[in-house]
Amino acid sequence: MVIKMNYPNNIKKDYNKNVTYGNRGMFLENLINITNDYYLEKNIAVIYKKPTPIQVVKYDYHTKRITDAYYMSESTLDYNGIYKGYYIEFDAKSTNTNNLPLANIAEHQLKHLKKIIEHQGIVFLLIMINSEAYLLPGSKVIEFIANNKRKSIPYEYIQENGYMLKINYLKGIDYLKAVDLLIEEM
Amino acid sequence: MVIKMNYPNNIKKDYNKNVTYGNRGMFLENLINITNDYYLEKNIAVIYKKPTPIQVVKYDYHTKRITDAYYMSESTLDYNGIYKGYYIEFDAKSTNTNNLPLANIAEHQLKHLKKIIEHQGIVFLLIMINSEAYLLPGSKVIEFIANNKRKSIPYEYIQENGYMLKINYLKGIDYLKAVDLLIEEM
Repeated sequence: MVIKMNYPNNIKKDYNKNVTYGNRGMFLENLINITNDYYLEKNIAVIYKKPTPIQVVKYDYHTKRITDAYYMSESTLDYNGIYKGYYIEFDAKSTNTNNLPLANIAEHQLKHLKKIIEHQGIVFLLIMINSEAYLLPGSKVIEFIANNKRKSIPYEYIQENGYMLKINYLKGIDYLKAVDLLIEEM
Repeated sequence: MVIKMNYPNNIKKDYNKNVTYGNRGMFLENLINITNDYYLEKNIAVIYKKPTPIQVVKYDYHTKRITDAYYMSESTLDYNGIYKGYYIEFDAKSTNTNNLPLANIAEHQLKHLKKIIEHQGIVFLLIMINSEAYLLPGSKVIEFIANNKRKSIPYEYIQENGYMLKINYLKGIDYLKAVDLLIEEM
């Protein structure tokens, strides 16, 4: 699938090409990228995926290539930006079981999630589970962890406490529709 | 200079160590990192430097090292986060001349700046010029470019339209004091 889009910046966006759809995480990420590009193009919101933090060890100034580096762990969530004056931050989580293992959410990510709520931001998880997409508010993630000793969030909890999102393979996932409902409740 | 800080996350922060102060850009970046850590620790704001976007070309799964990669150009500004419910985004610019060359601000960064204002975010440049630090609101950057054909923003313009910030070599630059003034004007 190659989608023609007017990219608003000069970062080469090649996530529509050569994407292996066998990888569930990449599939969701790809849909979110399409959505964010759409939001940017239509001037609805400015939301980006943060670059993956990489520690550069060796850089060759002559060839302008990095020749040794490694991935660092993340303390924040993957996506952030602005919508209607609100600070938005979220992470994408995919699971191919009937629950979302909490091992997917690092301790420092959970702390970060709480901080964003405290500072009046909008924070959530975009979850792909049982071929459905849900927006689960950060407060509901915290609530679940506070009241349960389970090591995963069951599908039923996500269904009951999240907002189901329509998946459009060409247009992405219009998650801001659910964010509008969250704003109404603020 | 090694400053003991309680780091709130597991990303190894080594910017206080082995910093070459000969590099003006690094000096300002280091001060901003100290400030953001302080804000995080005191729960004043949650503002991070975005990781530098790197395109990974080769990854060795065995050694878990990236063996070929290159830096990509940025379309957004370097720092973003949340303060008092407001979306904050800014870039750090250092100059050792009596003006800020506009070559320092890429065309797509300027577009991005406009977008953030449109979506009711707070956007600015933190400028180190003549050994002084200034917060220059994004609107003033746009205004200058719209009304001038000069290829650099003169020191006088920055003085007149920016907020001068105190530099504390241990505590950083408390730029949120100036942001408070920007919020009052919104």
